[in-house]
Amino acid sequence: MSEQVVIGIDIGGQTTKCGVVDARGDVLSQTVVRSDSHTDVKPYIDELAVALKKLIADADAEGSVRGIGVGAPNANYYTGEIENAVNLTWGVQGHIPFAKMLSEAMDGLPVALTNDANAAAMGEMTYGAAKGMKNFIMITLGTGVGSGIVIDGKMVYGHDGFAGELGHTCMVRHNGRQCNCGKTGCLEAYCSAIGVARTAREWLDMSDEPSELRSLDKISSKDVFDAAKNGDKLALKIFDYTGTLLGQAFADFIQFSSPEAIVLFGGLARAKEFLTDPIQKAMNANVLPLWKNKVRLVYSQLKESDAAILGASALAWEL
Amino acid sequence: MSEQVVIGIDIGGQTTKCGVVDARGDVLSQTVVRSDSHTDVKPYIDELAVALKKLIADADAEGSVRGIGVGAPNANYYTGEIENAVNLTWGVQGHIPFAKMLSEAMDGLPVALTNDANAAAMGEMTYGAAKGMKNFIMITLGTGVGSGIVIDGKMVYGHDGFAGELGHTCMVRHNGRQCNCGKTGCLEAYCSAIGVARTAREWLDMSDEPSELRSLDKISSKDVFDAAKNGDKLALKIFDYTGTLLGQAFADFIQFSSPEAIVLFGGLARAKEFLTDPIQKAMNANVLPLWKNKVRLVYSQLKESDAAILGASALAWEL
Repeated sequence: MSEQVVIGIDIGGQTTKCGVVDARGDVLSQTVVRSDSHTDVKPYIDELAVALKKLIADADAEGSVRGIGVGAPNANYYTGEIENAVNLTWGVQGHIPFAKMLSEAMDGLPVALTNDANAAAMGEMTYGAAKGMKNFIMITLGTGVGSGIVIDGKMVYGHDGFAGELGHTCMVRHNGRQCNCGKTGCLEAYCSAIGVARTAREWLDMSDEPSELRSLDKISSKDVFDAAKNGDKLALKIFDYTGTLLGQAFADFIQFSSPEAIVLFGGLARAKEFLTDPIQKAMNANVLPLWKNKVRLVYSQLKESDAAILGASALAWEL
Repeated sequence: MSEQVVIGIDIGGQTTKCGVVDARGDVLSQTVVRSDSHTDVKPYIDELAVALKKLIADADAEGSVRGIGVGAPNANYYTGEIENAVNLTWGVQGHIPFAKMLSEAMDGLPVALTNDANAAAMGEMTYGAAKGMKNFIMITLGTGVGSGIVIDGKMVYGHDGFAGELGHTCMVRHNGRQCNCGKTGCLEAYCSAIGVARTAREWLDMSDEPSELRSLDKISSKDVFDAAKNGDKLALKIFDYTGTLLGQAFADFIQFSSPEAIVLFGGLARAKEFLTDPIQKAMNANVLPLWKNKVRLVYSQLKESDAAILGASALAWEL
């Protein structure tokens, strides 16, 4: 095989997904290793390297691998380190020189590292909905709210490598919800999957409005989505509220970097039939006139099962 | 004269300030022409060109001028046009190809154009407090609140050339003050010179608290500053409130682009003895832990009388 390929690795708390990816964004081979079998990083990397070498052989790509891109929590693009990653069994304390260690275990292949939301933005720009765009903001609506910002064709890393924490901008200044980050009123506390479920529980408590959600013991954002599809009025109002907050937040992001588009990705973005209208309405109501109806709202075009690998792999083309 | 120089031009509603500037940021010669003598742009540019040629001769700089930088309202860096500038007698309607017209009138010297806040940021990066910084946000606290954002050593213009309208991000979501832009609750409606005077009038009406401001017919931000220097408690509280809102806004800006510093400039920034503490306190209370006490707050180091010319001139070094 002579065509150049890259490797994408997405490190989550439980599993690490790896794939060999070609320039069209096709995943030629993929595998999964556990992330949480070790409390020390060295044996984890050794295990990962064995899996990667087999993966390269499976894809018949020996000698054609241009580099390795890694998406991981608390990853610093500038230093190649994973810093105090509380969700990784081997990452809890201190700064791990992950890029350097993995490169050594892979016979010197170059390795680049960034966080998951930045990787998602790179993936969308390289293979997906943001192909050809030079200025856009990626928002990932999952358990949390993540973001990756692209300006003039380049990922924004900022002074220290950690730019783009838009999930923690303030949406509710007074008496806002407690966020996992320690602050209150963050966008993430309202517009993540967890935030939507929380809105449902709060609103059910606060009113007697009938809703099919009342019959459930536990409520997830998926339940709210299903109820909305059944026409449940309270569920529809919850998405209207969530979309409105997102649109208000996006308006301020637009006033920062004037992007061509906001790109949405993640589990909650599947509810686009209920989110698009309130987002666009609030976005247009809160931007300066010059941006009204100018900034596009688009949804990820990457297959969800491949997106994490594709995002991480996109980093490696720049190596 | 063989040393290279540039020309900086700052176009305001009434006057246009022009200067010849060397690489150290010394203004070698300067002059002022009226901006509002004409309703058509052509005779204005002809007059400006005559003044510039004399200025170049005065500085003994014929043949050494590298280019011309212009700071103007509603200026688009990408197109070189001034778009619908309601504050300019000759700029009200449509798109004026200003850079092209001025270049032609100046025998082909290259001309670049941007808005005043971006020019201020360029000036600070080239000659002032942000020298050597690659990631910072400039906030101009004048009649309005303007901003210029630098990421990775480059001015952020965004998709359309108009990025960096941070004065119009929303600080008060419900029942916010009416802003000149047509929206409500904008940072500018609270933290500009006009906003500070407005806070004073509102608070005087709302309470019986004694204050030397009560004796004044009209109140300007300068009056509030003078009262604060006299120890007037209400005036001190007004600056505390203004600084707190600024710090809250800056926290969200930091979460966007992770700058090394926020740089403040403009008339209101002279009140730094009353603004610095509340700004820093609110900034640190509203950023993620990783940025606490990390982002510097600095004040412009450019001489106020030269700053507008210097800012515009900085653009020209890139030509």
